[in-house]
Amino acid sequence: MHNGKARAFTNIALIKYWGKKDQQLILPMNNSLSLTLDAFYTETSVSFSKDYSHDTFYLDDQLQNEKATQKISHFLDLARKQAGVFEHAIVRSQNFVPTAAGLASSASGLAALAGACNVALGLNLTTKNLSRLARRGSGSACRSVYGGFVEWEKGNSDQTSYASPVASHHWEDDLAMIFILINDKTKDVSSRNGMQRTVDTSLYYNDWLKAANIDIEKARTAIANQDFQALGEVTEANCLKMHATTLAANPPFTYWTPDSLKAMNKVQAMRQAGQNCYFTMDAGPNVKILCQKKDSETIYRELQKDFPSHQLIMAHAGKGIETLEMEVAK
Amino acid sequence: MHNGKARAFTNIALIKYWGKKDQQLILPMNNSLSLTLDAFYTETSVSFSKDYSHDTFYLDDQLQNEKATQKISHFLDLARKQAGVFEHAIVRSQNFVPTAAGLASSASGLAALAGACNVALGLNLTTKNLSRLARRGSGSACRSVYGGFVEWEKGNSDQTSYASPVASHHWEDDLAMIFILINDKTKDVSSRNGMQRTVDTSLYYNDWLKAANIDIEKARTAIANQDFQALGEVTEANCLKMHATTLAANPPFTYWTPDSLKAMNKVQAMRQAGQNCYFTMDAGPNVKILCQKKDSETIYRELQKDFPSHQLIMAHAGKGIETLEMEVAK
Repeated sequence: MHNGKARAFTNIALIKYWGKKDQQLILPMNNSLSLTLDAFYTETSVSFSKDYSHDTFYLDDQLQNEKATQKISHFLDLARKQAGVFEHAIVRSQNFVPTAAGLASSASGLAALAGACNVALGLNLTTKNLSRLARRGSGSACRSVYGGFVEWEKGNSDQTSYASPVASHHWEDDLAMIFILINDKTKDVSSRNGMQRTVDTSLYYNDWLKAANIDIEKARTAIANQDFQALGEVTEANCLKMHATTLAANPPFTYWTPDSLKAMNKVQAMRQAGQNCYFTMDAGPNVKILCQKKDSETIYRELQKDFPSHQLIMAHAGKGIETLEMEVAK
Repeated sequence: MHNGKARAFTNIALIKYWGKKDQQLILPMNNSLSLTLDAFYTETSVSFSKDYSHDTFYLDDQLQNEKATQKISHFLDLARKQAGVFEHAIVRSQNFVPTAAGLASSASGLAALAGACNVALGLNLTTKNLSRLARRGSGSACRSVYGGFVEWEKGNSDQTSYASPVASHHWEDDLAMIFILINDKTKDVSSRNGMQRTVDTSLYYNDWLKAANIDIEKARTAIANQDFQALGEVTEANCLKMHATTLAANPPFTYWTPDSLKAMNKVQAMRQAGQNCYFTMDAGPNVKILCQKKDSETIYRELQKDFPSHQLIMAHAGKGIETLEMEVAK
């Protein structure tokens, strides 16, 4: 019996990961840069045993179906191969999110699973190699290995594609991110399918890649200078350019809903009124608002006025992956 | 005393005009293709007289201020120069729109003024040269010289940039366009400033131009084949690509409001439910829905259910510019 358990926090990209150049290895088309957050995390335990005849996967105490379990098995195969251990496993994953509104991120989930496998199988991975392993589970998971600001170097091979922390002198501790939960419906277009359709068909995709390279340089400079306005501006502009690519895909699509647009307009109106805040959005309708911790309560209350029936969640900078004790020996 | 009066209908581009390569001559960056509509039009009379000491401009019976009058004077100068007549004028323009919701288009207004000047000054312009003259007043006005489907050939000089009818065997008479009036507020970014900012700063603008060339070819083919689905698809996709360019401008901006997005989503949902309809939008929040006349009443009623407090306007194909009798000799 080989046991391991780990906790990983989710991360939100300020400069977006949007498109793969290798579906199998999950190598991205461009570097991305994220902030790890404390408000959403996953705890995952894994037990490998020669007594098990197949892999079993519990998510939030619910036994998962074959399709969901296959994805986990596929990831476990990578870890088993690295360890030279070929035993089946029971995986128990718990998402800690303030709501069931679809914010359980594959980033925290697959990072936690990678961390649990690292312990259980005695892989003794460096954080760099743990990031590489997590990447194979879900691209953005490679960034959740670290806390604070993180850059995913796209690389051009399994060896060279991994995340690293961005030196920030703990500036992230001065920041906050407020989530407006717009909609808990299943997405029409998954992020995986959306980015693939965009890579394959969007007339603006090549220019997106050029823009992302410029934007990430701006973001690095803003972090180095602790320049909040510069970071906010490039975050918002990068998000809009990512979402613009989907409008030029064939067929075109968007992740925006009317309430998403209402929230974006509100952020811009607050900024015109002197509040220092910027939005970002991922492959879904939720809007995330980057601000400074000192302003975050005021901005939160202001948002509550316009979104009284929406759930708002305050997040701050989160930590990197952590190893946990198993409560009970299986 | 030289008098003239004309009526011109507005037009809505299916393949958008978005960006000038010459601000002075109003030469566009790409060809555009429109449908002239019957629901909105302008009637304009002009009287030139050596007795007038300055130009005077009435819009909807209201004397206009110096700034608005200067624009008209600038256009009158072009017509006066062509005619060799250097007299000041009184211009009276009446917009016939079912509402004051900001739909009074510069397209119908400047086309009607060009038509009135043509009569008053005895210019005897061919429709091609009337289109060229109207273009100098407002780019899209050059398309309102003709009814039905119209293509504006971008050209590369004042001589070569003008609109022409697209052969359609009256297929436009089978079509309809329903306007959802979203908002009557003044636009944050005028269409003139928006397109200029996009040309100057949008990272996606060059690819927009490539896309527009492809799209207009598709639109021509769809019209030749009387293929409504093909025309609708390229209309909607072209609109989305145009609006995507604004998201990649610096600073980014959008003409969309939450209700615009609600209307776009509604059209896509109706289509999924089997209704044959497609949207387009210009540099403002209103949504225009292209459909076939035989379906238009059903679609209109369906839209009314979701937009009970919005004004909906049904339009059909409109005629080209018409010369009118002056009611009263001035």
